[in-house]
Amino acid sequence: MKEQTFLQELKEIDLLQQSLAILEWDSQTGMPDQASDYRSEVTSYLYGKYFEKKVGPVISEAITYFDVHPEELSEVGTAAFRLVKEEYELNHAVPNELMTAYSKATSKAHSAWQNAREKNDFSIFRDALAENIRLTKELIPYWRKDEATDYDVLLNQYEPNMTTAILDQVFGEVRDGILAIRQTLSEKGTVPRTDFLKRTMTEAQQRKFIVKVIADLGYDMTKGRLDNTVHPFATGINHRDVRITTRWNENDFSMGVFGVIHEAGHGMYEQNIDEKFEYTPAHEGASMGIHESQSLFNEIIIGSNRHFWEKQYPYFQECAEGTFDDISFDEFYRALKYTQASLIRIEADSLTYVLHIIIRYELEKMIFNGEVSIDELPQLWQDKYEEYLGIRPENDLEGILQDVHWSGASFGYFPSYALGYMYAAQLFHAMQRELDVDAILASDDYTPIQQWLTSHIHVFGASKKPNELILDATGEALNPTYLLDYLRTIYFDVYQVSQ
Amino acid sequence: MKEQTFLQELKEIDLLQQSLAILEWDSQTGMPDQASDYRSEVTSYLYGKYFEKKVGPVISEAITYFDVHPEELSEVGTAAFRLVKEEYELNHAVPNELMTAYSKATSKAHSAWQNAREKNDFSIFRDALAENIRLTKELIPYWRKDEATDYDVLLNQYEPNMTTAILDQVFGEVRDGILAIRQTLSEKGTVPRTDFLKRTMTEAQQRKFIVKVIADLGYDMTKGRLDNTVHPFATGINHRDVRITTRWNENDFSMGVFGVIHEAGHGMYEQNIDEKFEYTPAHEGASMGIHESQSLFNEIIIGSNRHFWEKQYPYFQECAEGTFDDISFDEFYRALKYTQASLIRIEADSLTYVLHIIIRYELEKMIFNGEVSIDELPQLWQDKYEEYLGIRPENDLEGILQDVHWSGASFGYFPSYALGYMYAAQLFHAMQRELDVDAILASDDYTPIQQWLTSHIHVFGASKKPNELILDATGEALNPTYLLDYLRTIYFDVYQVSQ
Repeated sequence: MKEQTFLQELKEIDLLQQSLAILEWDSQTGMPDQASDYRSEVTSYLYGKYFEKKVGPVISEAITYFDVHPEELSEVGTAAFRLVKEEYELNHAVPNELMTAYSKATSKAHSAWQNAREKNDFSIFRDALAENIRLTKELIPYWRKDEATDYDVLLNQYEPNMTTAILDQVFGEVRDGILAIRQTLSEKGTVPRTDFLKRTMTEAQQRKFIVKVIADLGYDMTKGRLDNTVHPFATGINHRDVRITTRWNENDFSMGVFGVIHEAGHGMYEQNIDEKFEYTPAHEGASMGIHESQSLFNEIIIGSNRHFWEKQYPYFQECAEGTFDDISFDEFYRALKYTQASLIRIEADSLTYVLHIIIRYELEKMIFNGEVSIDELPQLWQDKYEEYLGIRPENDLEGILQDVHWSGASFGYFPSYALGYMYAAQLFHAMQRELDVDAILASDDYTPIQQWLTSHIHVFGASKKPNELILDATGEALNPTYLLDYLRTIYFDVYQVSQ
Repeated sequence: MKEQTFLQELKEIDLLQQSLAILEWDSQTGMPDQASDYRSEVTSYLYGKYFEKKVGPVISEAITYFDVHPEELSEVGTAAFRLVKEEYELNHAVPNELMTAYSKATSKAHSAWQNAREKNDFSIFRDALAENIRLTKELIPYWRKDEATDYDVLLNQYEPNMTTAILDQVFGEVRDGILAIRQTLSEKGTVPRTDFLKRTMTEAQQRKFIVKVIADLGYDMTKGRLDNTVHPFATGINHRDVRITTRWNENDFSMGVFGVIHEAGHGMYEQNIDEKFEYTPAHEGASMGIHESQSLFNEIIIGSNRHFWEKQYPYFQECAEGTFDDISFDEFYRALKYTQASLIRIEADSLTYVLHIIIRYELEKMIFNGEVSIDELPQLWQDKYEEYLGIRPENDLEGILQDVHWSGASFGYFPSYALGYMYAAQLFHAMQRELDVDAILASDDYTPIQQWLTSHIHVFGASKKPNELILDATGEALNPTYLLDYLRTIYFDVYQVSQ
């Protein structure tokens, strides 16, 4: 087989994927309400064509052939082949009936989850969740390469080469560190004033501000667009068409403003993957964790920086047309970084967020190590919130029913969010060895920051594994110290804790 | 062959067409600027799949089989088969090389036309136009069924069963009638005040107003959406997803307001085609002329009605937030119907528009009857404007270079616009025999009007031919009297000509 034949097939698969991505973006941003049934017919049809090709004869033959003739592949072909083969090996042994049962179960579980949320009653979701877990356990032996535990197998689907051995250690360290910071803040900190955060800022005012900010940060609007949606996301159709979405709250600008900064981080990643990987599976993010590191670099690292906000605040005030004229920069900045324990993950602040993830990680491990029964989960969820965050959910909606992930059997996904935090802080630390980031954020030109991220992370797409990327970019393996250092610096400053 | 096999193939063709329609809509409404090259790859790929099927073995076999077994087809199958067969017969005899040459020529002509417009110089477009005409003349023998003249063949591609014999007669009558009305207005009319039409109304204010108006008229926003674009259009993805677009001028609200009313007419048509025709070529408008009759019914018939505007004006004033508070309803209404000869077709008012079409019709006929050489065209264009409209284009941009149609070899298309005017007025006349349209437009509920149009036109889709639709809906064949009567009534009222 010629490499060209293999790459052409990947290109056709990618073209179908691009069509599906546009249709999906459309259905999430403004498709007419009544169009969904007809739309399903279109996407099912195209998805069928896409899937046929992915498991079709050209790909099978390529796997057989290039496995023994790897030297016939170019650099791009090699990167693409590795990813195609990994996906093939992950799924080829899974019996069709099991895959069908799994797909049906997750679809049913999603409805059950929505229904349970409406009734605020975990018991409605219970059986469907049990079935998702049961089928996932059945799948693990087929998915397993050489992972130490069942849960490691799941983890690796989202973060290649990550292990529970590593996570137990770093999550333990991070959890203790965050709890210590929270303790210090409550004992010695001065709580900032936050009342003005609820002042009305129209969608148009917020949009005007944030569109300029993300352009400063390096999101290229000539290769993207910003739309409204219910559950914000970024989607890279190709590197010249990377769309971000948001929702707005006119009485809480921080939702839209930080939301867009976050999604623009995902967007900048996809816009800057090397063009040579286009039309292959290497033209994607390296992992969920690495993708999240780029959105969180924007949201948490830059979005917590005093110099950044000092530079942007006058324009923010201008866009708000007088609403914040009586608020000093210091008051404004400190309010942004106010921290408080909360029950809902997606509303958590940058200090407590990781604790929400660690709770879920611990529960998922227990589920797959057989250390907990399903019926114990809601109670255990509440206990852990009380233990780590000091507040107890009073019902399932505030507790175990809040996240969509388990309804889709996406076990092993949650740790990616926390990895993103740690990677972002570690990249920031490495970047500071070469760049004076504070000075850059105080200037009119942020491009050195974006260029650093592009050259160390973005360009490689999925051609390098997460651990390779982090090692090459920072000179060491995942190290949670940098996140803790960063959180300490930011929050001790905001809460005026003398160190 | 089973009917089910035939219908399933049509459905798959339609699903590909729907994907292409969404991609096209996206590229016209907000696709990132830099995305177009990558987008072309996606659409070429899907278009290839679509075209393969359209001329593929299933369709060929269906044509052979059902031609001799028409009794095995259901009502929907019969309607679909007739259209599929018509398209097949139109194109099957055309040699591939000729079709390829034609496709290349139009693509080249489009660039030449754009280039000629930039330089305001017809000579740059001349050779490409000559080639479009030459190839079209070569194609006519393959396309011909039993039409009397070459130009009739072209006409029939856009308006089945229409002839130059009919058009010569009705266009002659309409031209003379409009010229007579214009004569009367200039001799006896009182020109309305129009200065306030240029007052600033923001896009948001205009949008607020017009979205309510089109909902009143019957455009269902739960099955549609309104976006901004450069060249406004409506697109029916399926009957539950019918999108309209517009452009706005904040110093001339009439552009957006009448533009949206117009597109909503196209949209209402597509939203109300009988669902049973979905996934077949019968789920389309009957012709360009009939489609235009629906948009023009909204824009010209309803949009010229004094009672309609009297009802809507208070809300218009409210949306404009005080800008028109000093303008009486009578002043406002009369200003909307101000008429003036102009050089650019798409900027023409409802009295003079048809004259622009008749000029083009006469020129196209001359081209295909060999009565004019290409080099004479610019001059002839200018002469005809001077003769019919009393003003002379001073250059090609104001003259022969203004329309895109000839660059795409869409000869025979222009008459559709004028047919739309005449059909709309004729439908209005028939509707008035059953409904008190003025009273309905003065009320809070316009649904009887929309229901009349739906039951007489919309539901049939392309299952009836234009002449059948008009005959069945109005009891007679195309009759230009109603348009002239209507224009006389409206303009004599506005210009205060006593009759």
